[in-house]
Amino acid sequence: MKSSNVFYLVYGLTLLLGIICIVIVIAWNTWYRGGFAWDGTANMFNWHPLCMVSWFVLYGNAILVYRLPFTWSSSKMILKLVHATLNLAALTLAVFGLLAAFGFHNKMHIPNLYSIHSWVGFAAVILFSLQWLLGFLSFLLSCVPHWLRAAYKDVHEFFGICILAMTIAACLSGINEKLIFVLNSANSSIPYMKLPPEAYVANVLGVILLCFFLTVAWMLYKREWKRPTPYTLALGDSSEVYQELMVLGSDH
Amino acid sequence: MKSSNVFYLVYGLTLLLGIICIVIVIAWNTWYRGGFAWDGTANMFNWHPLCMVSWFVLYGNAILVYRLPFTWSSSKMILKLVHATLNLAALTLAVFGLLAAFGFHNKMHIPNLYSIHSWVGFAAVILFSLQWLLGFLSFLLSCVPHWLRAAYKDVHEFFGICILAMTIAACLSGINEKLIFVLNSANSSIPYMKLPPEAYVANVLGVILLCFFLTVAWMLYKREWKRPTPYTLALGDSSEVYQELMVLGSDH
Repeated sequence: MKSSNVFYLVYGLTLLLGIICIVIVIAWNTWYRGGFAWDGTANMFNWHPLCMVSWFVLYGNAILVYRLPFTWSSSKMILKLVHATLNLAALTLAVFGLLAAFGFHNKMHIPNLYSIHSWVGFAAVILFSLQWLLGFLSFLLSCVPHWLRAAYKDVHEFFGICILAMTIAACLSGINEKLIFVLNSANSSIPYMKLPPEAYVANVLGVILLCFFLTVAWMLYKREWKRPTPYTLALGDSSEVYQELMVLGSDH
Repeated sequence: MKSSNVFYLVYGLTLLLGIICIVIVIAWNTWYRGGFAWDGTANMFNWHPLCMVSWFVLYGNAILVYRLPFTWSSSKMILKLVHATLNLAALTLAVFGLLAAFGFHNKMHIPNLYSIHSWVGFAAVILFSLQWLLGFLSFLLSCVPHWLRAAYKDVHEFFGICILAMTIAACLSGINEKLIFVLNSANSSIPYMKLPPEAYVANVLGVILLCFFLTVAWMLYKREWKRPTPYTLALGDSSEVYQELMVLGSDH
């Protein structure tokens, strides 16, 4: 099968997984946790998983903008603007997700940021904000010298996938923490260890989030799916060039 | 600074972080959790975090074998054997880590594999075993055709870092789960949310594990730190070749 067809197949799967994650997190918090409100109660907290899962899914999609073959003929500046806008929307979701958790904690006199889940999640949001700001200054405003921008690009790409990895770790530990709190409490008839339906729903959410992460990572990893640069375009079809380099360079 | 000097600096830091992780997990389980035994009690469970953290650290180091510049003049087969042996030792630790958790659960009549922490962690061990087996068959026994081995190399490298990411997610959610269980129980005088010393120790372990993951990932990500192949060697110094490709290929 043609490389770009495989790409679109994996991309379609990623989109589907992302949508399923958002549907499940809404269903979980509506069916089992009483729905959403912004009033300092547990229903306010329910915005936290929804916003954080949506941040994660939007962020994953924002990274992939440069990989879409139909965008390669567009100006790079337009792609950068789309990437920055999607990530700004993702950042807004992350901030609302934090506010939902902090608002609930403050009303209930629960301290903020004590668990390793919250430490890693909060660090991910802070790093994501910095990443956005530095990306904006470097690649959109271009107020840094060209050599520094070129050097920063590597760091920006690296932290792009690493913050995504931190976010999946925060999502999974957050699902675990929430299920322990609500299912092992006195109000719950079936504890987490007996796997009541809610535990299955939220555990499956965790598994699908992980699958989403793996498909995004795979699309970033595949060299032949990278946006061709002036250099690779000058040499010809990028996927062929990369494949040739791989065969020549291989001594497995 | 010379690229290989920077590499050794980051590598030294990674080794140090790995050792600190193992020291902290031993200290945590000795000072606060009653030490180690193999008798079905909570002291048997304490082997679980120790074995899993040690697996993670050894696995990270096994991946880096090919990055060490002083090994580049060695035969590739020797490097493969070192890589496979370290990963086999890591797999043994992972299996003991699982046995410690299962042994404790069985004795205490606690079901196995119900939490999302256990699902992700168990999946990571299963994938790691498969990865080891397929790597052994493909690269050491060479019982698969050359073209398939070349194609599998990409998949092997991809899953190498992805399983490491799954392992860090499992470690962080495991630390979170353990602290909730033990600090929020009736036996604990200070709950997790009040951050008693034990919570600090284990949270800091999580942070250092994450730093270890990031330094390993950075060393894997940097193209100029990859082991030169016959192709890049034929062209000259690999880091120069990659840097040239990057400048030529860049249109940031």
